[in-house]
Amino acid sequence: MKAKKLHASIDKFIYVLIGLNVTAMILESHVSLREAYGQYFYLFELFSIAIFSLEYIYRIGFAYYKYGFRGSVQYIFSFFGIIDFISILPFYLNQLIKIDGRFLRILRLFRLTRIFKFGRKSTSLKVFTRALFSVKNELTFTLFLSVLTILFSASAIYYLEYEAQPDKFSSITESIWWATVSLATVGYGDVYPITVGGKIFASIISLVGIGIVAIPTGVISAAFVEEIYKERIKRKS
Amino acid sequence: MKAKKLHASIDKFIYVLIGLNVTAMILESHVSLREAYGQYFYLFELFSIAIFSLEYIYRIGFAYYKYGFRGSVQYIFSFFGIIDFISILPFYLNQLIKIDGRFLRILRLFRLTRIFKFGRKSTSLKVFTRALFSVKNELTFTLFLSVLTILFSASAIYYLEYEAQPDKFSSITESIWWATVSLATVGYGDVYPITVGGKIFASIISLVGIGIVAIPTGVISAAFVEEIYKERIKRKS
Amino acid sequence: MKAKKLHASIDKFIYVLIGLNVTAMILESHVSLREAYGQYFYLFELFSIAIFSLEYIYRIGFAYYKYGFRGSVQYIFSFFGIIDFISILPFYLNQLIKIDGRFLRILRLFRLTRIFKFGRKSTSLKVFTRALFSVKNELTFTLFLSVLTILFSASAIYYLEYEAQPDKFSSITESIWWATVSLATVGYGDVYPITVGGKIFASIISLVGIGIVAIPTGVISAAFVEEIYKERIKRKS
Amino acid sequence: MKAKKLHASIDKFIYVLIGLNVTAMILESHVSLREAYGQYFYLFELFSIAIFSLEYIYRIGFAYYKYGFRGSVQYIFSFFGIIDFISILPFYLNQLIKIDGRFLRILRLFRLTRIFKFGRKSTSLKVFTRALFSVKNELTFTLFLSVLTILFSASAIYYLEYEAQPDKFSSITESIWWATVSLATVGYGDVYPITVGGKIFASIISLVGIGIVAIPTGVISAAFVEEIYKERIKRKS
Repeated sequence: MKAKKLHASIDKFIYVLIGLNVTAMILESHVSLREAYGQYFYLFELFSIAIFSLEYIYRIGFAYYKYGFRGSVQYIFSFFGIIDFISILPFYLNQLIKIDGRFLRILRLFRLTRIFKFGRKSTSLKVFTRALFSVKNELTFTLFLSVLTILFSASAIYYLEYEAQPDKFSSITESIWWATVSLATVGYGDVYPITVGGKIFASIISLVGIGIVAIPTGVISAAFVEEIYKERIKRKS
Repeated sequence: MKAKKLHASIDKFIYVLIGLNVTAMILESHVSLREAYGQYFYLFELFSIAIFSLEYIYRIGFAYYKYGFRGSVQYIFSFFGIIDFISILPFYLNQLIKIDGRFLRILRLFRLTRIFKFGRKSTSLKVFTRALFSVKNELTFTLFLSVLTILFSASAIYYLEYEAQPDKFSSITESIWWATVSLATVGYGDVYPITVGGKIFASIISLVGIGIVAIPTGVISAAFVEEIYKERIKRKS
Repeated sequence: MKAKKLHASIDKFIYVLIGLNVTAMILESHVSLREAYGQYFYLFELFSIAIFSLEYIYRIGFAYYKYGFRGSVQYIFSFFGIIDFISILPFYLNQLIKIDGRFLRILRLFRLTRIFKFGRKSTSLKVFTRALFSVKNELTFTLFLSVLTILFSASAIYYLEYEAQPDKFSSITESIWWATVSLATVGYGDVYPITVGGKIFASIISLVGIGIVAIPTGVISAAFVEEIYKERIKRKS
Repeated sequence: MKAKKLHASIDKFIYVLIGLNVTAMILESHVSLREAYGQYFYLFELFSIAIFSLEYIYRIGFAYYKYGFRGSVQYIFSFFGIIDFISILPFYLNQLIKIDGRFLRILRLFRLTRIFKFGRKSTSLKVFTRALFSVKNELTFTLFLSVLTILFSASAIYYLEYEAQPDKFSSITESIWWATVSLATVGYGDVYPITVGGKIFASIISLVGIGIVAIPTGVISAAFVEEIYKERIKRKS
């Protein structure tokens, strides 16, 4: 009982700290603010790292105390355990070996994934994961189809547009950018076909793109319909 | 009976007036028309405000007459009560303290929300709100996921693109614009990644964007399927 | 029996002629082809008009012969009757009064609607119209919501962006273009907000745009689920 | 039994080879890599063609051995048989008659379709094809509707925009590019209407585009809901 209460308090405090960390991260990205208050941002980071490190150690210890060695190992390799570790790793790595600053910052992004913990106790998350998990195979297959279509489109557009626009469709690797942006129907407009063949192909791919969007939507719909059906049955019996 | 008939007449008149107000608003936004007929637009506004104010007072009075003090309070804080108040507020505020013209005009936009009253008696609206309400938690969770993904994408693209395009991805706050436009698959093309890392990340985010669109669609589908199922059961029994 | 066979032959011939008309229309739009073969296109048009006029008269006559005066009136005001009339009207109008060439060409577009007749006997079309008809109210309401959101967005963005981009957001009427293109997630990129307020508003509207797409999709899904359910029940009993 | 084992081994080896072929194709598209290692790419291609040719002959032979002449004919004209043939055809064609290099490369793309063979034994593919097959008519009809709408939009925008932008909307054929990109909600922004009439029409088409996306999604949803329902029934009995 006491442990539960303590955990709830820790959680609440950690949530607030995560919120502040995200806010600090956004504010720090403004040059003017970074220059004026850089020191405070650094101090806040030190403080946050200290807290998150303590939290991590506490969670390992608690798992050990409760379920023994296996419990702590289980926590370490659990979804949230990995996130807890990744979110403090970059700081310590930076102390040992000087890693590239930009890479470090990208690593720090992992801290953001902590926000997912907000939903840990929500029933919505459970319905979501259950619904999406039940169509796991179909969604994986859709992803596989999407990647295949992107690869195919990128190769085709490369052969069709390379001569006309050698700078924009310089290689298949480069063309993947166009293919993804087109199939996801984003269409920034930085690259687009200009030859007749390229336009015809891109038109067909645009229509295929509708299907690429429609299939996962259909699968997810069906999953939620089934989920709601099960809930109805459960409520009746 | 009489009150009902009177209310229906008031409603009809108010609806026409709202329609005329929207039309006037659109017409007034044209410089040439504003300059030529500015006076008439102002007079029409005065007339409209007078009518809407009377309507507001009448509705409070009617609620008081019918359900006493509690009834009128209930109306004032109801959805339509607040809209009725907000739609006339800016005019009076402007008489008391000279508020910034542009802000005033934004406030006047709230008048547009009155159009929602058209659906007050429609059964479609009821089916809609019932269906969407039944998946309220799921939709809120989807919104939460979307905001999280936007924040994460904005942070990541900032670190990846800042050095290459310091003017377009000047801060995480600025990058949120890119992230939202990309995830909603709008893609204006005013900002887009140009580095390899940025493009890879944006490609992944584009595919995630499909999911961000697919999940609410799936949830809403399921809600309507359930709604239609219930109607069928009801009709049978 | 004979009439049926004759009708089938007429239909087949008319279908081919429609196909040739569409092809001719596309080919004629190329300046080089129009200049080289303009005469042949005109002759083909004269021939087509003659056939379509005869078909129209025949159908009226046949309806009269079968169901009397009421039958022919019914045909004239039926969906396909109106299309039959509209598709030949521009030519005759042009002989009587010289109407503006561009307007005339737009009128000629109505001929294209004839292609819908292809599906007259298909069961797919029946399933489609039945499914979509069953959610007619919901779809109308969605359209109403979309138009409302477009109007609201256009008004808001006008007030937010007018001072910064007076040429692009010159009036609410002009802003409707931006609002529609954004909500439908097309995003050409010819107009987009550049002020902070405009960007924040456009971000919110982009997310709303997802809903604007999700709701009709959900409604249509539910309609088809119900349709398939009914077919299953029918097959069983 | 032995044949099955052998086939599994062949399949595994072929899969790896396909993967390597796709990788080589992507790498070869980089000018620098092509210039440095062009010879190795060519040798690898020769090797691949040899293997794929042997595989093709083996499969024909095996089908003959198992089911006689009819069996081998059946394989040759099966989906995977055609793909097997197409993927080696360009190489041999090139030896006989010197065909245009670019066309050759496009033909080579067909090799990519082999990746579909990965899913041959997956149950996901079966659920997919069964679900999509059950709504085959509806999807075909949707495609027919889409093509019709594209043709109609292209014709209309051509008449509306030709005078204002004769270079971008030079013919209906050219306008089809705009129509497809707009209806699929991609919107690159290389072509967009600038006249009032064109904008109004494009706005309406944008909203229609939502429907064009919504209908196939709804149909596919319904198909998957039905598929899951059937699975549930099967599991029960």
